[in-house]
Parts: sequence; C-alpha cells; structure tokens
Amino acid sequence: MKNFSEWFHNILEEAEIIDSRYPIKGMSVWLPRGFQIRKNMLNTLEEMLNKEHEEVLFPMLIPQSDLAKEAIYVKGFEDEVYWVTKGGANELNEKLALRPTSETSIYPMFALWVRSHMDLPIKVYQTVSTFRYETKHTRPLIRVREITTFNETHTVHATAEEAEEQMKTGIQIYSDLFDKLAVPYTISQRPEWDKFPGSEYTIAFDMIMPDGKTLQIGTVHNLGTTFAKTFDITYEDEQSEHQYVYQTTYGLSDRVIAAVIAAHGDEKGLVLPPIVAPEEVMIVPIIFKENQDDVLAFTDALEAKLQDAGIRTKQDKRDIRPGKKYYEWENKGVPLRVEVGPRDLENKKIVLNRRDTGEKIFMDYNEDTVVDDIQAVLDQITEDLKVKSNKFQEDKTHYVESLKAVSKTINKKGGIVTFNWCGDTECGKQIEEEFNIDILGTQPQVEVEGECIHCGKEAKHRALVSKTY
Amino acid sequence: MKNFSEWFHNILEEAEIIDSRYPIKGMSVWLPRGFQIRKNMLNTLEEMLNKEHEEVLFPMLIPQSDLAKEAIYVKGFEDEVYWVTKGGANELNEKLALRPTSETSIYPMFALWVRSHMDLPIKVYQTVSTFRYETKHTRPLIRVREITTFNETHTVHATAEEAEEQMKTGIQIYSDLFDKLAVPYTISQRPEWDKFPGSEYTIAFDMIMPDGKTLQIGTVHNLGTTFAKTFDITYEDEQSEHQYVYQTTYGLSDRVIAAVIAAHGDEKGLVLPPIVAPEEVMIVPIIFKENQDDVLAFTDALEAKLQDAGIRTKQDKRDIRPGKKYYEWENKGVPLRVEVGPRDLENKKIVLNRRDTGEKIFMDYNEDTVVDDIQAVLDQITEDLKVKSNKFQEDKTHYVESLKAVSKTINKKGGIVTFNWCGDTECGKQIEEEFNIDILGTQPQVEVEGECIHCGKEAKHRALVSKTY
Repeated sequence: MKNFSEWFHNILEEAEIIDSRYPIKGMSVWLPRGFQIRKNMLNTLEEMLNKEHEEVLFPMLIPQSDLAKEAIYVKGFEDEVYWVTKGGANELNEKLALRPTSETSIYPMFALWVRSHMDLPIKVYQTVSTFRYETKHTRPLIRVREITTFNETHTVHATAEEAEEQMKTGIQIYSDLFDKLAVPYTISQRPEWDKFPGSEYTIAFDMIMPDGKTLQIGTVHNLGTTFAKTFDITYEDEQSEHQYVYQTTYGLSDRVIAAVIAAHGDEKGLVLPPIVAPEEVMIVPIIFKENQDDVLAFTDALEAKLQDAGIRTKQDKRDIRPGKKYYEWENKGVPLRVEVGPRDLENKKIVLNRRDTGEKIFMDYNEDTVVDDIQAVLDQITEDLKVKSNKFQEDKTHYVESLKAVSKTINKKGGIVTFNWCGDTECGKQIEEEFNIDILGTQPQVEVEGECIHCGKEAKHRALVSKTY
Repeated sequence: MKNFSEWFHNILEEAEIIDSRYPIKGMSVWLPRGFQIRKNMLNTLEEMLNKEHEEVLFPMLIPQSDLAKEAIYVKGFEDEVYWVTKGGANELNEKLALRPTSETSIYPMFALWVRSHMDLPIKVYQTVSTFRYETKHTRPLIRVREITTFNETHTVHATAEEAEEQMKTGIQIYSDLFDKLAVPYTISQRPEWDKFPGSEYTIAFDMIMPDGKTLQIGTVHNLGTTFAKTFDITYEDEQSEHQYVYQTTYGLSDRVIAAVIAAHGDEKGLVLPPIVAPEEVMIVPIIFKENQDDVLAFTDALEAKLQDAGIRTKQDKRDIRPGKKYYEWENKGVPLRVEVGPRDLENKKIVLNRRDTGEKIFMDYNEDTVVDDIQAVLDQITEDLKVKSNKFQEDKTHYVESLKAVSKTINKKGGIVTFNWCGDTECGKQIEEEFNIDILGTQPQVEVEGECIHCGKEAKHRALVSKTY
C-alpha cells in the first residue's frame, strides 16, 4: 500500500473496528465488529495464560503515595499520569492516579498476600484500561490516552532462578500468541536506558509495519527485587528468615490488534486471520426467483453444519447485488467466502473465495467431509498468512557492517538494521543521537565476533535499530 | 444467620472472593475465585444478551460539557462524580468525569450513528467500571466507589411502541438471569421521585436480603425522547422528516454477585448455585497407602470424564485430612462433593455430598450414566435453591391494610410490605417521612380496589415498602 498511515486510519472506520470521533483526543469507541476481533484475540491469549495463571481485577485508581513510592518507576510515568483531584464538589485529601500501569496498585496487596514460601509462587493477570496523558500525536490502537486492552501478568517467586524461568514462559506465551495471529516479530533485549523503569531487564517483541517503522507489541520484564524492596514484599523461608521476593511482569495491549490489521491488510481492505475474525466463513447464496428455495435450503443447512462444528459462520441473504456483498465482506476481512448458486447445486460444487490470495476454489461438495474440507482451507489461510508476514519481516531485516550503512539502509529500505555493537550505554546513545534512530535492543541468542561498528571496541552484541512508532 | 452483615463481610474474605484491604475506601480487589464467579455470571448474562444485542466498549472519561448537557441527569449524579483535572503537571482545559453511568458518553456517538430509519434499532451493551464518590458507608459489592461489574445495555428505536416492547425484553432477560442464579426478586415500577434521572419510568428488581432489607439488583428504564432531545439523536423517516429516537437502557452490577452470596449462604459459609461455581464438583479421593493407586486411577478417570462433559470439576489430592478438605470446600460453597474410597470401589458406589442440604447420596456407579447422574443432582440443587430462596422472598412479603401495620410489620418482620395506595407523589413522600421507610414502587400487574391507606382517596396501585440497602 502506498500510504500506510492513511490506509490504517480509513480501514478502522470502513471495517467498523473503532470510531475515533469520541470527543476526547486519543480515546475511541470499540464498535461491535472491532470488539469481536478484540475478544477473539483475548480469548486466544487467556486460554494460554489460564494454564498457569489466574485472572484477577484490581481497582483503577491508585493513591498518589503508592504511585510515588518507587522513585525510578514514578520518574518514568509522572509526566503522563491523569489525576483525579475532586469527588463531587470536594477536593480529595489525596490525589488519585488513573493507573498508567498497575505495579503500584497490585504490589501493596502482594505485600499482604505473601507471608511464607507456601504462598509462592503467585501468577495472576488482568485485562484493564490504563491511561496515559500522551502529549505526542495520538493514533487509534497505537498511541492512545486510554489503552482499553491492557493485558498484564504479574508473578512473584521465592528465587531469582524461578523468576528467570518465568521469563521464558512469558516469552513463549507471547511467541505462541503472535504465531497464532500470524503476526511476525523480532525479539530483543531493550538497552539499559530503555528498559521498564525499575526492572532488571526488558525483553520486547517488535513487528515491522508496512511503512518500515517498528511497533512494540509485547514486553516481558524481570523486575528482580526492586519492587519487593519498595513495597516490602517478603516471605519467611524455611529457616524463618525474611527474604525479598523476585518478580516478573509481562504485558500487551491494543497494539496487538493494530499489528494484526497492519500485517495482513491490502488495498481491498482488511484481511483477518480466521482465529480473530468475527466470521470465519460468509456464505452468499446466489438467488434467482425460480430456484430460491432450493438454494436457501442448501445454504441454511450448510450454515448450521459449520456453526455446529464451531466455525464462526454467517449467511448474507440481503436483497442486494452479490457483487456488493463481495465488496463489503472483502473490505471487512472475512477470510473465506462461500458462494452457492443453482448451477453449483446441480454440479454438487461449492465455490470458495480466499480473501488473502483472492484464489477461487471449486470444491466438490460432500456432506460428510465439508466441515473438515473448509476447516482445512481456513488452516491453510492461517499458515500462508504466517509464512507471508514472516517473510516480510525477514526481508525488511538487514545486517550491515558500517555505520554509514546503518543510516543509509534505514532511510532507504526501512525495517530493522542489525550490526555489531559493544553494548556500552555511552556508545549506544551516541549512535541514537548521531543518526536519529532508536536502538531497539540486542539479540541475546546471537553470538558475535569482531568490532563495534561505532567505537571500534570489541563487539558483544548484535544490536537492532529501526524507526519506531 | 444471626448477624448477616458480619457474616457477609467475613465470607468475602474466607471464600476468597474480594480483598477489601485496598488502600482506597470503597474499592476492592477481585480475587481469582471471586473473579471466576463474576465471569460465570457475566457469561450467563451475555449469552442471553448476545441473541439480540452487540457488545461494545466506550471510553471511561466524559468531558464535563457532555456530562452536564442533560440537566435532570446531571442533578442526579453531580454530587458523586469523580473529576480528572490534571494530566501530568498540567491543568486540563476541560475537566473529565469518571463515568458514573454511560449515557452521556454513549449518546453523543449515537447522534453520529443514527441518520435514517435504516440505522435503527441499535442494541448494544458493555461491561465496564463506573465510579461514584459515595459519601455513605461503603460495603463491598453492595455500595462501592468503583462498580467493577457494571453491565449496561442501551437501545435506540424509531417509535415509542418499539421502545416499550424492548422494555419487556430487558425485564425478561433479567428475570431469566436471576432465575438461573436462583436469586429471588420482586419487580416494581419505581415511584416518580425515585426513577432514573431523565427517564419516563423505571422498572426495578429487588431481592429481600437475610436481614430483611431489600437490595436493588437490576433496573430497566424507558428513557422516552429525553436524551434524544438533549443530544439531538434524530433519524429521517420515510417522509424525509427528522424524528427524535426513543431509547431504553437496562443495567445491573456487582450487586448481583452479592445477591447470589446472600440468597444461599449459611453458617458453614458460601453456597453457590452450580451455574456460577468455580468448581461444580470437587472430588476427594480417600486414600490409604495400600490402595492409593486404585483409588486415584478411578478418581482421575472420573475427573476427566466430568470435565469432558463440560462440568467444572476439580480433584483435591492434597496430603491433609479429608475432614479439613470438606470444611474448606463447604466454606467455599462447592455445590457437590464426591468422595471415593477403597470400600466404595469394591461396592461400585460413589458418595455425593450436597452443599445446599448437607444430604449424603450413595450413588451406584455406572460408567455410562455417571455424567448424566451427576448432572441431574446439580440440576436438582439449582431447582431446590430456587424454590427455597423464592419461598423466603414470599414469606417475607406481607400485605397489610392499615398504616400502623406497615411500620409494625416492617420493624418486626422486615422484608417487603404491600398495601393499597393512591399513587400521589405528595402522599407517598408523607408516608416515607412519617415511617422512615422507602416506597420501592408499585406493582403494575396487580389490580387494586378500595382506599389509599394513608390519604383515604381511591387506591390505584399496590405499593411496596421496605428498608433498603
């Protein structure tokens, strides 16, 4: 697409995902179709989280005294906190923050919950709205003032080793989620100066958007004992000594929906992977007066059969031209359209149209296998979307060996540029300033040899840079 | 129970439903078990709503100018609105309200959505947090400052008749929900001075709590054209004339969970109807060293079988005394406990323990029918809970024929007292003041003859009074 930004803005409206005309900047309405996509994404995520986490719900407001307790944390957030100062006509005794994230609302309660090692581990998550008084240009789903789909997990452990092990679980769950959504990603460890305030280190997932900029779509943080010390979360170990707990937290947001939309959409509109589509299959009966009854009897039965099998299926019986229906459901991203006309009935065929490739499939209709046959096409769509979007991410990732090539590649090709780096903060910040780019982080799994392309010292990491959202 | 208030407070903690130690008054944490009960309730409700409504999500903040637009409405809420006045260190240009309810956030968008009669009807709902700066004594789930389970439906119609018809749908859905939860209720039309601010009339559901006071657990409002006129929501009819729309709204809250807990609990703790219980069945294997393997092989298979059939089932294999397990799961309200020991295996029996009645059932074990057999017991529990709680509500409802009897009955027996009333506002307010009671409303379906027991004029309604939460 030529202008991704414009395309993205338009598709949210056309596909009825978000209405951004709400009278507060950076706050939008989830429309019914958007809400279904969001819900399907969350169901997919929660099914994985529920295997070892429990869902909870903490209050939305945080007393100023708790928000401010952890100095590093509050420094990271204080400029963008919304404050409640009045109840009715009364000034409140203490200002209350709309949560920017929930550490400072949850961890004082953890201090009450944890007494002995028997109370550990704790693994809980919640899906809530969080709020940021953004001063930058806002953009629906990507940079907003009310993050309406903030899914955050918080875990508490007796030892550093267990917390480190939990990091792997968090990374695995997010990797699996993005794979299911056919959203490509690059994993890196954020540089020291860009880690979560108060954390030991931050692992992040970045997707390359169609315009070549990266979007952070998920983060996993090892908090060490920072917050345990701030909020006095301790347990009595088997020797009756008080020990600080070790914590992790991982989270994602509305941006995951933005990523799904951006990864697959095309000039015709939205392309949804089946797992999040409000309708996986849209049946369009091709009706002529004389044989209307036969066709509808067939499509009604097909619809019921697919629905019974758990495939989200709808039928469009409106009295408008089929072409108009095709246009609309293609625009709204329905993965598979099934057309059935009188001639198809005669030939015992149904006509499948794949949204992702535009491919037409003339499928023999077999009552006993049609559910499996259609499910197989849906699975193939997911697989093909994944291969295609992963290829885009790979094609847009370039390894370079000189500083000049870093900025040249970023400006010409966009995407992610990787190079050898010493890992020193001072050197890294110089690179960012000189070339007006962000160091996304380093790839822990890549071993390097040679020199840092900026300072010439021994390279310790493969670093990633990109322009970012 | 002797002291309901104390019992209720304790059971929320013991059964791990809510942690009310959060450092802001009137705001509490949903613990994992409480969250599951809440989620099961919402799933039950949403399954019914989804038949003709769509789920949406509107922003949490409302500009002061929109909140204040409808004069009657703002008068009803302005004393209890929390205001956001600052973003970071900046004063905001316009104060933003934390929604007390959502009419003033949703209806300006309806004005954009509705153009012609083709856009109607609209039927949407959302489940969100709403906020009230309560100055009265707060109580978890019942009178709170963050209502975390505010499920509200909003509908828009072309005609008054359609809106009136929708009222019936709302009333039916809530009746069905409360029946499924075995929560008893009395339906009445609120008096003029207690209807929803801006509405034509309000229908409310009240449950009599164990202490004899009533709890409002759901309301259905006919808004007429009040808000349509305020927010200019009009459609072009087939004669191209602009017409105001007719609206309804219905809602319920955390109070439904409070009602479930209060309706069924006893001195041993929580009693949950199966439909909301985190576990419908808890299997306790009775293990002795010598035949541990046989018993566990059996209970593992039983657990898997019940889970496969969609019955929420867990097994308690902890190495503690069975009596301790019984005590814990009875306290937490698990509807059905299944005990299996070595002797039961020999006799091909399983032992079922009903939480609601304490009844022990020695059931013949039949591999092919065990799922149906257990489901039948669960269904019987629901039915018996419903009969029992409805009987309580009926027994606590008294018709009286004199004013003296009203206050005497309320004070001696509690519950709801009904009598003949003229329906005049002035007369009604005098009754409320003289006897320090609330007129809940009138029963539209009851026909009356005779005189108003207060002013002696012709009686037009059967009125209900009670002490209220």
